[in-house]
Amino acid sequence: MVTTELRRDPITGRSVLIDLTAQPHPHDFVLEPVRLDDAPAECPFCEGREADAGPELLAWREGGPANTPGWSVRVVANRRPMLRIEGGQDRRVEGVFESRDGLGAHEVVIETPMHDQAVHRLDADRLWRVLWAWRTRLQDLKRDARFAAAVVFKNHGRAAGARLDHSHSQIAAYPIVPAALDEKVRGAGEHYGRTGRCVFCDLTAQELTDGRRTVSDTLSIIAIAPFASRVPFEAWLLPRDHAPRFEEVSDATLEAMAVILKDVMARVDWALERPAYNLVLHTAPFSGDADAGFHWHLEIIPRVTRWSGLEWGSGVPRNPVSPEEAARALRAVAIG
Amino acid sequence: MVTTELRRDPITGRSVLIDLTAQPHPHDFVLEPVRLDDAPAECPFCEGREADAGPELLAWREGGPANTPGWSVRVVANRRPMLRIEGGQDRRVEGVFESRDGLGAHEVVIETPMHDQAVHRLDADRLWRVLWAWRTRLQDLKRDARFAAAVVFKNHGRAAGARLDHSHSQIAAYPIVPAALDEKVRGAGEHYGRTGRCVFCDLTAQELTDGRRTVSDTLSIIAIAPFASRVPFEAWLLPRDHAPRFEEVSDATLEAMAVILKDVMARVDWALERPAYNLVLHTAPFSGDADAGFHWHLEIIPRVTRWSGLEWGSGVPRNPVSPEEAARALRAVAIG
Repeated sequence: MVTTELRRDPITGRSVLIDLTAQPHPHDFVLEPVRLDDAPAECPFCEGREADAGPELLAWREGGPANTPGWSVRVVANRRPMLRIEGGQDRRVEGVFESRDGLGAHEVVIETPMHDQAVHRLDADRLWRVLWAWRTRLQDLKRDARFAAAVVFKNHGRAAGARLDHSHSQIAAYPIVPAALDEKVRGAGEHYGRTGRCVFCDLTAQELTDGRRTVSDTLSIIAIAPFASRVPFEAWLLPRDHAPRFEEVSDATLEAMAVILKDVMARVDWALERPAYNLVLHTAPFSGDADAGFHWHLEIIPRVTRWSGLEWGSGVPRNPVSPEEAARALRAVAIG
Repeated sequence: MVTTELRRDPITGRSVLIDLTAQPHPHDFVLEPVRLDDAPAECPFCEGREADAGPELLAWREGGPANTPGWSVRVVANRRPMLRIEGGQDRRVEGVFESRDGLGAHEVVIETPMHDQAVHRLDADRLWRVLWAWRTRLQDLKRDARFAAAVVFKNHGRAAGARLDHSHSQIAAYPIVPAALDEKVRGAGEHYGRTGRCVFCDLTAQELTDGRRTVSDTLSIIAIAPFASRVPFEAWLLPRDHAPRFEEVSDATLEAMAVILKDVMARVDWALERPAYNLVLHTAPFSGDADAGFHWHLEIIPRVTRWSGLEWGSGVPRNPVSPEEAARALRAVAIG
């Protein structure tokens, strides 16, 4: 007997169908190899090939001039940007249709100089520098008044949309608040309007008390399997205290973040046998209007299943692994 | 130089990034084979194995008793339902979390008695019977006052989430209006409130005049590549005249629908070299509250690309093929 539960995401109000009795089915899972098998000799992100990746916007380097070897993290403009700083701001309206230039920024954070080093295998102090690069670039992008918000994301593996094996993340700044962030901002705003409290703070407090969905924990950051997880082994990392913006976090919080991110990614990597995954960082829109109710957080989204017409047609994902079960499995992984 | 355009979907308000200068990139595309290579000898949907699929809720048959061979279309309950009619209606609230039973219905429409016959290769009169089964089952499900809405969908091929090769579609009835339908209902409602007109009617009239995105056409139904297409070669089929509900269409409209659906699917099949795809049918929620502004339609969603962290993080899909270009390519396919 199949038993499913419709669960409502407390931030967005969106529903998911958690299948509490699912039996793993081979057709549910992605069959593609994770790696793309790029030739390292042609990889534009490898140390020594700085000119191929383009001039650096930011780098963590031990010394030496810009755009030469000696860096551990390096940020460059995406060579095939989805959003460009040269765009105009005008809306074009034609009957019911509206469009505008793809104005914005699209940057690449090269997370390591070495070709074959996954970010979840970096030492915590190396991972810290990746988070530092995210923070620094967000601080800079925020100064451009044409941008409404930015999202940081990462594609690891073919099924997650990666086009290069060399470990990197991406930062995209938009002239609008993009939909996935906007629905969180709206939902959090409604909760704040109704209760005077941040919904992420309420959620974090409840998860710490409950414990069934906690995966890992530090003094400042908690990792949970979200109540309305959209995919198996989805995990969220949230600061315990109210903090709307990632670009304003302290060095100490970045340190805690590096430690817990490495820990949780190692657990996911073990439990799902080296899956493809996406990372998504959501920080408050640049305007500041949403700061009272918004709370930055990082999503880990393993890409081991695929969406069918059920998801496209209803917008209600079916998740064959409950977050309680995923959290239990992730807690049980022996680390270190 | 990459040029992208942010386009707003006139129904939902959601944005997409259309890449007007994309060069096809092999890593963009799904590599999986479309077929699952099920053994026909074990297929529960094949003629002669009616007991394996379960008792029929509906069948089009030339004669003979129920649950025996002789049918051309057959509807059964899904053996692993995502939603079940036995569920309760109560909401469970625990702090910020809300859940409820997966109450609803989940049915399978077996579109042909033959194992190796894709729905887009059926004759129009056979395809008519599939649409007739959708209509008839929706009429019945609507009578259950516990259901708020239903969605019909189809998964063709592995990348589209299919679990069986034997051609079938699915009908899911929900105790809520599911998100993907709800955001259309809300958007259409706003347009209706502002203008007194149906946004789908406005859109259809504009596309018929413009012509750049029309793919195919009958007296009663039009096929377009939507202005804010989310994936390459997305296509929508819409009735020309205002019609909120698929379950109320006439036999003649079903006929026109079968003809144009077969035509457009043949074009997509040729242009993308037999892609995996989903079909989604959206009809107004059962309550009738949205009927003035809603308009039934069918989406064809080829699954030849994959979503990355860009889509998960922003909710703004990148589409590397403009709908104008897709429509031109689809119109150019020589059919018949």
